[in-house]
Amino acid sequence: MNVRVGVIGVGMIGQDHIRRITQVLTGGSVTAVNDVDAARAGQVAAVLPGVGQHRASVHATAQDLIADGNVDAVLVASWGPAHEEQVLAAIGAGKPVFCEKPLAPASDACLRIMDAEMAAGRRLVQVGFMRRYDAGYRAMKAALDGASSEGDGLGAPLLMHCAHRNPSVPDYGFTTDMIISDSAVHEMDLVRWLFGEEIVAASVLTPRRAGQAPDGLQDPLILLLEMAGGALVDDELFVSARYGYDVRGEVVCETGTVALADVSEVTVRAQNRYGGRVPVDWRDRFIRAYDAELQEWLNAVAAGGAAGPSSWDGYAAAAVTDAALEALRTGQRTAVSMPERPEFYAK
Amino acid sequence: MNVRVGVIGVGMIGQDHIRRITQVLTGGSVTAVNDVDAARAGQVAAVLPGVGQHRASVHATAQDLIADGNVDAVLVASWGPAHEEQVLAAIGAGKPVFCEKPLAPASDACLRIMDAEMAAGRRLVQVGFMRRYDAGYRAMKAALDGASSEGDGLGAPLLMHCAHRNPSVPDYGFTTDMIISDSAVHEMDLVRWLFGEEIVAASVLTPRRAGQAPDGLQDPLILLLEMAGGALVDDELFVSARYGYDVRGEVVCETGTVALADVSEVTVRAQNRYGGRVPVDWRDRFIRAYDAELQEWLNAVAAGGAAGPSSWDGYAAAAVTDAALEALRTGQRTAVSMPERPEFYAK
Amino acid sequence: MNVRVGVIGVGMIGQDHIRRITQVLTGGSVTAVNDVDAARAGQVAAVLPGVGQHRASVHATAQDLIADGNVDAVLVASWGPAHEEQVLAAIGAGKPVFCEKPLAPASDACLRIMDAEMAAGRRLVQVGFMRRYDAGYRAMKAALDGASSEGDGLGAPLLMHCAHRNPSVPDYGFTTDMIISDSAVHEMDLVRWLFGEEIVAASVLTPRRAGQAPDGLQDPLILLLEMAGGALVDDELFVSARYGYDVRGEVVCETGTVALADVSEVTVRAQNRYGGRVPVDWRDRFIRAYDAELQEWLNAVAAGGAAGPSSWDGYAAAAVTDAALEALRTGQRTAVSMPERPEFYAK
Amino acid sequence: MNVRVGVIGVGMIGQDHIRRITQVLTGGSVTAVNDVDAARAGQVAAVLPGVGQHRASVHATAQDLIADGNVDAVLVASWGPAHEEQVLAAIGAGKPVFCEKPLAPASDACLRIMDAEMAAGRRLVQVGFMRRYDAGYRAMKAALDGASSEGDGLGAPLLMHCAHRNPSVPDYGFTTDMIISDSAVHEMDLVRWLFGEEIVAASVLTPRRAGQAPDGLQDPLILLLEMAGGALVDDELFVSARYGYDVRGEVVCETGTVALADVSEVTVRAQNRYGGRVPVDWRDRFIRAYDAELQEWLNAVAAGGAAGPSSWDGYAAAAVTDAALEALRTGQRTAVSMPERPEFYAK
Repeated sequence: MNVRVGVIGVGMIGQDHIRRITQVLTGGSVTAVNDVDAARAGQVAAVLPGVGQHRASVHATAQDLIADGNVDAVLVASWGPAHEEQVLAAIGAGKPVFCEKPLAPASDACLRIMDAEMAAGRRLVQVGFMRRYDAGYRAMKAALDGASSEGDGLGAPLLMHCAHRNPSVPDYGFTTDMIISDSAVHEMDLVRWLFGEEIVAASVLTPRRAGQAPDGLQDPLILLLEMAGGALVDDELFVSARYGYDVRGEVVCETGTVALADVSEVTVRAQNRYGGRVPVDWRDRFIRAYDAELQEWLNAVAAGGAAGPSSWDGYAAAAVTDAALEALRTGQRTAVSMPERPEFYAK
Repeated sequence: MNVRVGVIGVGMIGQDHIRRITQVLTGGSVTAVNDVDAARAGQVAAVLPGVGQHRASVHATAQDLIADGNVDAVLVASWGPAHEEQVLAAIGAGKPVFCEKPLAPASDACLRIMDAEMAAGRRLVQVGFMRRYDAGYRAMKAALDGASSEGDGLGAPLLMHCAHRNPSVPDYGFTTDMIISDSAVHEMDLVRWLFGEEIVAASVLTPRRAGQAPDGLQDPLILLLEMAGGALVDDELFVSARYGYDVRGEVVCETGTVALADVSEVTVRAQNRYGGRVPVDWRDRFIRAYDAELQEWLNAVAAGGAAGPSSWDGYAAAAVTDAALEALRTGQRTAVSMPERPEFYAK
Repeated sequence: MNVRVGVIGVGMIGQDHIRRITQVLTGGSVTAVNDVDAARAGQVAAVLPGVGQHRASVHATAQDLIADGNVDAVLVASWGPAHEEQVLAAIGAGKPVFCEKPLAPASDACLRIMDAEMAAGRRLVQVGFMRRYDAGYRAMKAALDGASSEGDGLGAPLLMHCAHRNPSVPDYGFTTDMIISDSAVHEMDLVRWLFGEEIVAASVLTPRRAGQAPDGLQDPLILLLEMAGGALVDDELFVSARYGYDVRGEVVCETGTVALADVSEVTVRAQNRYGGRVPVDWRDRFIRAYDAELQEWLNAVAAGGAAGPSSWDGYAAAAVTDAALEALRTGQRTAVSMPERPEFYAK
Repeated sequence: MNVRVGVIGVGMIGQDHIRRITQVLTGGSVTAVNDVDAARAGQVAAVLPGVGQHRASVHATAQDLIADGNVDAVLVASWGPAHEEQVLAAIGAGKPVFCEKPLAPASDACLRIMDAEMAAGRRLVQVGFMRRYDAGYRAMKAALDGASSEGDGLGAPLLMHCAHRNPSVPDYGFTTDMIISDSAVHEMDLVRWLFGEEIVAASVLTPRRAGQAPDGLQDPLILLLEMAGGALVDDELFVSARYGYDVRGEVVCETGTVALADVSEVTVRAQNRYGGRVPVDWRDRFIRAYDAELQEWLNAVAAGGAAGPSSWDGYAAAAVTDAALEALRTGQRTAVSMPERPEFYAK
């Protein structure tokens, strides 16, 4: 089956997903687009291959796109504040929807999406936490779960050390809060998935600032996350790290550890050094994870089911973000406030 | 455009390519199959998704498949001795053909294929040397070509050290000649591509046999290849190496070296060791290279062109194989006998 | 010049230093020993080589040993509570003294030692913080100080991530406090030296316990240290880690990081794994650092000077230990209470 | 016991050994020196510490030095052509002698030394093949010998891949023959020791020259060595490799491999690269091996025995060098011509 996808939001990430569906993945096509910038939507549609005789439609509103009979499933890549309305509309139309992170910036908006999805009676939403599809984290999880020989007898996980380093952020407009809400949110989802349990509290430490950090930005930060079972995660967030895009992680278990390996394809020996390259940006590092994520979504849609990070996962990330932002503001350890996970979202 | 592929030979590798086209790649479908084992062909066809209303056809002969109007392009995955006739038939029908290695076991058969292709006036053949599509070798070539910052100022390549280790081969039927013709042929093609020049001579060294090698098998071997420009390649071939499937390579340039990195996704620390995993088999190691190879073929066919390893490359590998087998037999350095590369196959 | 050393305390570490002086290092000999266990002292002395016609003397008390005219310098390897009296006696006798860590368990005892040394008018004390002599930490410091090309342009250090993992501790007698006072004290001294500034506050986090930790032991711990300049150090202490003795460290600077490399001499590829060994214990990991430390002491004594970690360093470690133990007890961030560094101990 | 050493030849290597004995190692002192340059000998002696009231003597001839009653043992660091006479004189005087490699440039001279030593009735000679004392090679040998858990079940060694890269050699005076006799001689001794068997044949391959190699120098070379048991060693010798001093080795056994690890103490992440440093020269790489080698010699002398590489080892290296030079000259595989190992030199 070919899944006909309507894409809402055709900025950088939206266009990248379109490229992915049309040129890399199997089982999907893009039949409709919408964007707040209608001209941009038209330009993107104009170069789409179409399906059979049908050219891709350009819709004036997200609602129109969702209602389009040639759209089987919706991909939301608009800006965060628009997500709630668009995802709710897709659920209302009974159409599967892939929503880029965040599911919604506010945790109560995420709860409303969960309510709508539960009312619809089946999972329709996948949230774009693509790190779960990275080969490194997958191998790490397989080891922790005892699903690969790598993890034989490691025992229970006790700690995780993470680092999330970006070469740079824009000089204006990127705030310290965004280090939590845009960068750290990836680790929040990831550790919930890796450990198979919720985060119950967050603290934020503010070390010496990097001299090159944009004015007003507290960079780096250390985010501490406490898991329900007592494991502790420390996450170094450093978005002006200059030297490359470097995502690292080591889970310390009772009798051994599992860490992400470096990803360089080759090792060079020159000028009295040996070593490999560090990725230049997130795309360089995670492009295959994005591919795998969206392929799994297409497969799930084609099979009439759902997979991957759910609305609950989107909500949990928002709730932890709330706590971490409060911790940043107050300098205090802050408990995460969350209801019980509904049975509907049981694993 | 959707490329309708007819697959000749649906054993392990043929079925794997079918899975690839139908479940992983974009832009292709499998519309016809043929196999010497008609029952197997039928079983494979029965579970193919088909295109629109059309079910995949099962053809009694390769010729019938090639003639099928629903077949745009042909994938040859039959056994080696059948390749020549099938590839010639595809060329005769003016249809692009992807041929698993070897293009043909005998170098003169490869020459006949080249002649037919040149007579047809355009490139129609891609040979399945998938290592050229491996991310590690690609990064190595980019470094050597100065196309990435990795290779800044390495100077000319002088040497290459290769190792090609398989955990095991069947106890019966795998001969020492096959270590050259089936295993080493990968390095033969690869170094021609990496260095951008032909191999002019081959020698074979026979070290102490591994005790676990099947009776009669001289394993390991060292194959020495001399490049036209004087660079020297040593290739350790060890097909009973037990510990894993391990393909390694280091190019030594005038002022530095470039080597394949290990491919483990994670590093584990346990039981007084740290380290990563070695792939279990060629599929584990090169699955992405197979994907990339066949996607490039589909793209090239859709665009009306050709890409990747050509008939000339298939011929050159056969000619070097001839020389290496002679060197194995005689214990002597053996020159490779090859005509000039036809202008038609200029890079 | 040959430095004649009197050794107080000939338990495991004292005997190891005697072996070092007599069989590994140059410029020293052991001419006198003392131990609370007189029989043990006698046994150790009996197998000492002696110097010229003189056999090593066995003294009934530390004071007698210090007063011995054949003792040029004193090595204190007794248990911690005895250090103050013995070091003060050596200072009183005007003899250089190497004191194993801790200089004294209580920080005020360390202050009294400093006062005595300042009254003596010259540095006489070296404290046994041997990690400063490890080749890995030395290379790290050289990089941070811009003293090697490794650190070109890394910028100011902002963070340090440490891990200090022991395979095991005794089932009885090893307390959670000792994880701070015996294990973490190494990192306390090390980061003061690496960063060239004092520690101003400590916090302790208590993650999920390892199931195999001895009853009552909170293991692992995370110790957070704040440097005077704002840099932040996180130190994982895990003394029941089973898999080996693994000491790791990464300093995150403004534009790059420097980390300890693994120390395995060889890489093995076997059974689908590649990798190296993790040391079995602290001796395996740091034996060369102990050698270098004591050689530097002998050299300094022979030259009439002093080197290495001073009484001030011993005091600072005690003061930070006090704060960290308080933080462990209260769960609160605790400021380190310390006077200004006396000019006498200026670097 | 303090071993009083007389040093013949106080050029760079001789002075380095003097520094080692007087400032690094235990159990030795330098009591006499001799050099063809008497002024240099005087300058070196003037700054020696002496033993008791005795200043180090400067002798006009090697014979005088060997006869000196204050000399217990002789260290020969003169130029190669002088070794035979000096070593024979030391044997004649019944004094242990450490002789820098080569034992003698000509293999028949080595045979004469063996004859004299056998006539003396006990081992008196240790040859300066210091790589046997390198921690990396030691760990490799322990793994191969099953003496460490590293090598559990690797099976018999079949192949060894070596690389021996120097950043540069002098523009004048360094000949292609010297790549064999001065550089490759280290691997010749090492593989004999690692494999515990003799080398029976040598071949030399001459790849494309590095453009920066001094005029007339064939650099790099590939030396192939065949072991008595059939194992095969390939040794890349590249003395103009520019990028650093890089010595590598991997032994391929039946079911796994053991390789030298990189020796960088730290890993740096900066400017989109991660990695470590390559040593700058042989001293940087092997300084600890030299220390260990000479300490073992001092210990053996003090104990009245002998250790380390013997005259037989010196002879064998010379015989293999002869064969390799012949192979370089003729382009042919050349058998090594050697008598049986005398029982006197049985391991």
